[in-house]
Amino acid sequence: MAQKIEYSEYLKLGQLLNCAEPRSYALGRPSHDEMLFITVHHSYEIWFKQLLFEVDSMLTIFAQPKIQEREMGILVSRLQRMVEILKVLVHQVDVLETMTPLDFLEFRDLLYPASGFQSLQFRLFENKLGLKSAQRMNYNSLPYHQHLAGTGGAQARASEEQPTLFECLEKWLERTPFLQTDSFDFWTSYRQAVEENLNEEDRLMRENTFLTAEEKAKNLEISQRSREAFLSLFDDAEYAKQRADGSWRLSYKAIHAALLIQLYRDEPIFQLPFRVLTAVLDLDALLTQWRYRHAIMAQRMLGHRVGTGGSSGATYLKQSAEQHRIFTDFYRLTTFFLPRSKLPVLPPEMRRSLGFSYSDGE
Amino acid sequence: MAQKIEYSEYLKLGQLLNCAEPRSYALGRPSHDEMLFITVHHSYEIWFKQLLFEVDSMLTIFAQPKIQEREMGILVSRLQRMVEILKVLVHQVDVLETMTPLDFLEFRDLLYPASGFQSLQFRLFENKLGLKSAQRMNYNSLPYHQHLAGTGGAQARASEEQPTLFECLEKWLERTPFLQTDSFDFWTSYRQAVEENLNEEDRLMRENTFLTAEEKAKNLEISQRSREAFLSLFDDAEYAKQRADGSWRLSYKAIHAALLIQLYRDEPIFQLPFRVLTAVLDLDALLTQWRYRHAIMAQRMLGHRVGTGGSSGATYLKQSAEQHRIFTDFYRLTTFFLPRSKLPVLPPEMRRSLGFSYSDGE
Amino acid sequence: MAQKIEYSEYLKLGQLLNCAEPRSYALGRPSHDEMLFITVHHSYEIWFKQLLFEVDSMLTIFAQPKIQEREMGILVSRLQRMVEILKVLVHQVDVLETMTPLDFLEFRDLLYPASGFQSLQFRLFENKLGLKSAQRMNYNSLPYHQHLAGTGGAQARASEEQPTLFECLEKWLERTPFLQTDSFDFWTSYRQAVEENLNEEDRLMRENTFLTAEEKAKNLEISQRSREAFLSLFDDAEYAKQRADGSWRLSYKAIHAALLIQLYRDEPIFQLPFRVLTAVLDLDALLTQWRYRHAIMAQRMLGHRVGTGGSSGATYLKQSAEQHRIFTDFYRLTTFFLPRSKLPVLPPEMRRSLGFSYSDGE
Amino acid sequence: MAQKIEYSEYLKLGQLLNCAEPRSYALGRPSHDEMLFITVHHSYEIWFKQLLFEVDSMLTIFAQPKIQEREMGILVSRLQRMVEILKVLVHQVDVLETMTPLDFLEFRDLLYPASGFQSLQFRLFENKLGLKSAQRMNYNSLPYHQHLAGTGGAQARASEEQPTLFECLEKWLERTPFLQTDSFDFWTSYRQAVEENLNEEDRLMRENTFLTAEEKAKNLEISQRSREAFLSLFDDAEYAKQRADGSWRLSYKAIHAALLIQLYRDEPIFQLPFRVLTAVLDLDALLTQWRYRHAIMAQRMLGHRVGTGGSSGATYLKQSAEQHRIFTDFYRLTTFFLPRSKLPVLPPEMRRSLGFSYSDGE
Repeated sequence: MAQKIEYSEYLKLGQLLNCAEPRSYALGRPSHDEMLFITVHHSYEIWFKQLLFEVDSMLTIFAQPKIQEREMGILVSRLQRMVEILKVLVHQVDVLETMTPLDFLEFRDLLYPASGFQSLQFRLFENKLGLKSAQRMNYNSLPYHQHLAGTGGAQARASEEQPTLFECLEKWLERTPFLQTDSFDFWTSYRQAVEENLNEEDRLMRENTFLTAEEKAKNLEISQRSREAFLSLFDDAEYAKQRADGSWRLSYKAIHAALLIQLYRDEPIFQLPFRVLTAVLDLDALLTQWRYRHAIMAQRMLGHRVGTGGSSGATYLKQSAEQHRIFTDFYRLTTFFLPRSKLPVLPPEMRRSLGFSYSDGE
Repeated sequence: MAQKIEYSEYLKLGQLLNCAEPRSYALGRPSHDEMLFITVHHSYEIWFKQLLFEVDSMLTIFAQPKIQEREMGILVSRLQRMVEILKVLVHQVDVLETMTPLDFLEFRDLLYPASGFQSLQFRLFENKLGLKSAQRMNYNSLPYHQHLAGTGGAQARASEEQPTLFECLEKWLERTPFLQTDSFDFWTSYRQAVEENLNEEDRLMRENTFLTAEEKAKNLEISQRSREAFLSLFDDAEYAKQRADGSWRLSYKAIHAALLIQLYRDEPIFQLPFRVLTAVLDLDALLTQWRYRHAIMAQRMLGHRVGTGGSSGATYLKQSAEQHRIFTDFYRLTTFFLPRSKLPVLPPEMRRSLGFSYSDGE
Repeated sequence: MAQKIEYSEYLKLGQLLNCAEPRSYALGRPSHDEMLFITVHHSYEIWFKQLLFEVDSMLTIFAQPKIQEREMGILVSRLQRMVEILKVLVHQVDVLETMTPLDFLEFRDLLYPASGFQSLQFRLFENKLGLKSAQRMNYNSLPYHQHLAGTGGAQARASEEQPTLFECLEKWLERTPFLQTDSFDFWTSYRQAVEENLNEEDRLMRENTFLTAEEKAKNLEISQRSREAFLSLFDDAEYAKQRADGSWRLSYKAIHAALLIQLYRDEPIFQLPFRVLTAVLDLDALLTQWRYRHAIMAQRMLGHRVGTGGSSGATYLKQSAEQHRIFTDFYRLTTFFLPRSKLPVLPPEMRRSLGFSYSDGE
Repeated sequence: MAQKIEYSEYLKLGQLLNCAEPRSYALGRPSHDEMLFITVHHSYEIWFKQLLFEVDSMLTIFAQPKIQEREMGILVSRLQRMVEILKVLVHQVDVLETMTPLDFLEFRDLLYPASGFQSLQFRLFENKLGLKSAQRMNYNSLPYHQHLAGTGGAQARASEEQPTLFECLEKWLERTPFLQTDSFDFWTSYRQAVEENLNEEDRLMRENTFLTAEEKAKNLEISQRSREAFLSLFDDAEYAKQRADGSWRLSYKAIHAALLIQLYRDEPIFQLPFRVLTAVLDLDALLTQWRYRHAIMAQRMLGHRVGTGGSSGATYLKQSAEQHRIFTDFYRLTTFFLPRSKLPVLPPEMRRSLGFSYSDGE
């Protein structure tokens, strides 16, 4: 049995609460709102630490040669936890916004050059999720790692060389064993279903009596573009080209698997993988929202004030909200869904192999 | 100009992030979710520190012999900030709930006897708001301060002797100069308006042709009870009695002032005081919600597990949600509102004195 | 292909937006805030309709003799959707609170006797979830259904005779086939594990050198009570007694299955059922929060104003927050969890039968 | 006394709940999630109606030749209410996101060409706030009003001719009487304070011993640009030019007044006007967030699916989040704040005229 421990000792509260030392007080020109500024950033950093802890634990699970099915629930839970944490972080901006620009101005000059752009943990988090170095915007003409003090830059660079959640998901998707079985070839069947569906849509469009000729023409044109988009996915050379130019990041095989999981998510074996993909979409959406809210807040706090080096924080944040997104492939994938009723029907053997070994004869 | 400072140095991140030391890892039986448990409590404590900082700053403002009108906006802003912080703390429970009871059980025994009931900061916060010692529930047959480790108990006891936000508000209300002026005696006028209004309501009830005799009788009975309640407020001996038995806590004069502000809040001089009272209601509601959510969460986490000494945390929290409320008088006060259209009309001199000195002849 | 349809026609916006007719305007004494009052209630009612739609769809799935494993994902999704809807409804109270009591008073008399207690949809929702008629508090000395206008009372009574979500979950749990297999008897194994664990805890307590004699005695006493609680669960006669007196509602077999799912949730076949149980806990917690927030809001809006018949809305709501809870058994169950490391190890055959039929030889 | 009215009659629930008629059910291919789609949009539309009601009531107040000081509290409350409503609408996206793209695809073809872009109420809301027609993006090569069915386009166009909240705020700001008094000329004093402050900053920079020569040079360059920006504001010809090219929208006089209010917000007479400006910033931020969240959601729901006419909804929404912002001037204004400690001190006469007529000799 462990030694007794008191609450404040367990949490090292003396040490923790000692970290807030408003400079304006230390320098004899006390500014009330600096404490809030510190508290908000402390809160961010301890939550970033938690996010890193969660993502590291997932990378460890993914590092195994084979992921046990009983670990899928754990992956989903950790991703969903990260989503809940990010929701609180987005909400927390409301608190920071109770500090008005005028109050911020009182102590802003004391912080130079400290800035949230120097948060090592946030950069590590982005890297571990899979943000590519090449994708990153410079800030004040300098790459991100040059903004990190001490050994931060080196640590961030080193983390770029480690496996990322994006890559792990990709490899895990590639290992999905159901893309081609004795009884079912997903890609061939799906292609066929897509073509039948497009043909059927065109036929219905032509026969439609509610639409004007002009509307029909427009819709057929859209349908044609839709056909081209769909077919490009079935053409591996074309996909390779699109991947090379950055439209896609996932491997061709991973794309197939992600589609398979999304489309047949009701099959028992895909129910948890589907939740993994959904949580990843949520994660990406919340990171984006967080950046966007910060951009708006920075604009409110600083207006068009020119930052050191000529860029404004608000502009950087607003652009990065889109440019630093990591999991957009999983969004784009939606383009290629067919409704359930149009999907290829799985042969019974395939269906059985996607179910539980236990069966009372359903 | 201040010396340069980097982000991580400014926030003492090394020291801060070092405070999370999961015992389960230290003791060689790592339990993943302990880190979340620590992070959530760290977040609570740094926000409690911020709440204490805000409430202390308000107590300092209130400690002045006279509060400048230009400080009213500051009081409102700080109260509203506390409200936003409490909203985030309520929301944060969502994150803790991603830890399931089974995961908690893995490391729960390592924490003995550490518990949130040992949070000194939270007790100080309650005391500074105005929670009375006599009002507090015992936990495990012991008064709250005996649960606080080290010098915590003594610090908490000492804080009971300090002025509280409740008392400060009460004194500030008592100083409201408009309760009786040359042209207007609020209490007499209001009593008269209340009586006229009650009489009018009874008359309408008797003449009403839409109600059955039974409904009328019922409504007249309610009206009678309403009359008694109203009149008891106008009887200072009766009020003193009710205050002695704990139905009311505010002084008679403070009650009058709070009513005056609520009823005539549109007058310029009452617009900010009205926002002070509203923010106090919000604060009370959120503290209650926070306790209630924790009660439900404790029940989920521990079920009916018997706590040390026989009480369950869930039960304690659920009861304290109601019993530890501080500003209920301001809720109760609503009972005695008349609609704007029934209020005594302020004489022009009075109205002028509630407006701005600047006037372009409105 | 369907006929073209415009947005406003699809949503019948003309009809929808026509439903808001503030009485105060119709009666010539316009009160601005009545519109908000109507809008908030309209929003509640359309969301209640959606909640009923979701719960009905689940009851239909549960009405089948056997629930397909591929329907488990659907059940989880619909429960989680209900949870998200309830979160918005709890949040929505913030909007209603922008109406101050004084503004409410302006038109309150025009609404007599309309009241949220007359919401048929909310009563149906409670009934369909499984709130028992006997459990319900009277309001103003009358049972709930007598507050419902027109045919509402009869509809509500009729819904009490229909299958409820609670009962459906119970029956589904009872059908869990893994409680006793050739290789594994859950209940016997679990009882043994519980006893070993309690013995081990007592031994550690006695040998502990960090605790005082007094602390040890206290802890052993708690341990003894914990033992009694645990053992009562393993005694079907005792359970039957506790169920008869209302401490438990679920059948003995359903309790076993719920425990099995919670404890072995990592096994593939239990991952979705575990999420069903978690979502049910969330649902219960949110309904309770919603009631509690309304209670606080009613108190703010009306103070201690005596309602028709002598009860106050705030008091009713606050009590019902606890008394009208439906799924508390699933909370209480936590009392009987052992940590994963103390659980009986499943024999390999059992483990296989909880996995997927597909296996690459893991 | 008004006639009795029951809850369901008061709210016209029969009519209200009848508005949800899923097409997929009517057409015999029931798709469960269509009901959610309808409910979410119904909720939006009833809240849009409420937002319009609030904004209309503000426009009525602003239409008066002089706004009474006792109406300022009402304006603040209504703006803050709109902010709370928008928060719920942003939150509500969480519910819509429980509908997966695959579920949406099941009935999407039945809705053609209905789309949220056809919401007349939302367009009216934008127009009434002050979105300029010229500022609007086309959607599918057509101006917004051509997407509105029936008389919607004409109604929307007509609303463009009505006074807007933006214009009303501008006129109200222009009427602020304190920009130039006998004892104080705000603009001249402020310009002087700005220059002194810039000079002082440069001097400190030059004397600073903590910075490298390179850093000093960089900072002086920024300071120079800051000086130019500041001075351009004091040059009415330059301001007129910037206004002509669209960098600013507010009149020169309104800009002055908004600055005065922001900088001297602690003076009693500016406390409510300051809250008006703050609520307007909140409103703008929330509208932007709402658009942004919808953009991300549209991308998730539809991927890169080509919309009718070649634009994607996601792209339109993402761009409009920035381009359709209305109150950006109030953000930009922050650029020109000086900290409180550097502000010109108000002469006593001026200060008195910003206070209450009541004074006990403070």
